[in-house]
Amino acid sequence: MPTAAMIVIGDEILSGRTQDVNVQVLAQALGARGITLAEVRVIPDDVATIVRTVNELRGQMDNVFTSGGIGPTHDDITADCIAQAFDVGISIRDDARAILATNYADPENDLTDARLRMARIPDGATLIDNPISKAPGFTIGNVHVMAGVPKIFAAMVESIIPTLTGGAPMLSDEVRIEKGEGTLAAPLGEIAARHPQVSIGSYPRAVDGRFVVNVVARSTDADLLATVMAELRQLA
Amino acid sequence: MPTAAMIVIGDEILSGRTQDVNVQVLAQALGARGITLAEVRVIPDDVATIVRTVNELRGQMDNVFTSGGIGPTHDDITADCIAQAFDVGISIRDDARAILATNYADPENDLTDARLRMARIPDGATLIDNPISKAPGFTIGNVHVMAGVPKIFAAMVESIIPTLTGGAPMLSDEVRIEKGEGTLAAPLGEIAARHPQVSIGSYPRAVDGRFVVNVVARSTDADLLATVMAELRQLA
Repeated sequence: MPTAAMIVIGDEILSGRTQDVNVQVLAQALGARGITLAEVRVIPDDVATIVRTVNELRGQMDNVFTSGGIGPTHDDITADCIAQAFDVGISIRDDARAILATNYADPENDLTDARLRMARIPDGATLIDNPISKAPGFTIGNVHVMAGVPKIFAAMVESIIPTLTGGAPMLSDEVRIEKGEGTLAAPLGEIAARHPQVSIGSYPRAVDGRFVVNVVARSTDADLLATVMAELRQLA
Repeated sequence: MPTAAMIVIGDEILSGRTQDVNVQVLAQALGARGITLAEVRVIPDDVATIVRTVNELRGQMDNVFTSGGIGPTHDDITADCIAQAFDVGISIRDDARAILATNYADPENDLTDARLRMARIPDGATLIDNPISKAPGFTIGNVHVMAGVPKIFAAMVESIIPTLTGGAPMLSDEVRIEKGEGTLAAPLGEIAARHPQVSIGSYPRAVDGRFVVNVVARSTDADLLATVMAELRQLA
């Protein structure tokens, strides 16, 4: 399966101020497309860190997605960092400017220098549609640069995912078992050992003071998944 | 300030099945202790990836925290990976076994081989208290290995944070401004440029179809933070 990494550019996540919700949106969309989300990194709004991380991951993965830092303010440095990572120029592009202009009643006056920062696109990039607030994301090489605002991020994911080369969609199913993991561990391990092609995870949760276990099986093979689920349901 | 990285060991996060909530808990606790959370990585339940990531980050950071993979089931491989990363042995330890035993009515019979996996501790590690379900986490070198279940993770964070060397606690304040970022960007950039020692972030959100901006200032210097906040409130 093709691989992907996500880079969350986010002082606000690292400080604990904000709960990220974008990882799950991207993860689910990639799974349905048959692309494995192999790693997520959350890094600070720092030029050297962003450039280094983008260059490291774009060499390792089929796709890299970034979230955050493409707005109009001083702390929005992602587009410049991406240009630096790819060693290309960056400037206000006419197509991006025209798209931005559709968001304003009086573009001549409303497209301030700050807002025009959102039309600065690295040379050679293609735009990613933003149906919410117009300011586009962009793709350069295998790197997809998207907004951090959750509604806009989700809309950009919907724009970009269908354009990517996918594999067989990952299928998953799960069974909730009201036993402790300590009891389940041995028979569960036997099932997992019998079916090494199916990823089987065991996730305990506390419910009303007792632990219940959700056992999740994942595979791209529907028949094999059904076989494993039947075995897992015997444990319940 | 001392630095930290967090490694979320979690197929369930990367598949999109589960929303991580542990990052924010750790991030806030570290900020209050004056430790900078400099990076988070979410990686799969894969031995080579875990070993490589732990070794890379423990060399770069003052502290590394892991979450997930220390239960009794076949997919709980974190403790073995940590032993491998540090190139030390791992075995059932009497103190960990004694703590586990307090969780069961009939330890002689209830401490099955599966449950005893939770008493396997890398040589040289010290235990991290788990008041919820007893099975301990552990610290080896600068790496703190904790459970993924949110309630247990949070309890372990409370156990371990006070034992770490902290710096000046990071202080933050914010103001909500009902203007677009495009309007705010120029004056905000001037304030940020005047106070390079204060980290100022601008976070737009959609509220009832309009964008409002939360501007967050962060500093370890209370007086400087107050000065900057006064300037920021002038923009509202």
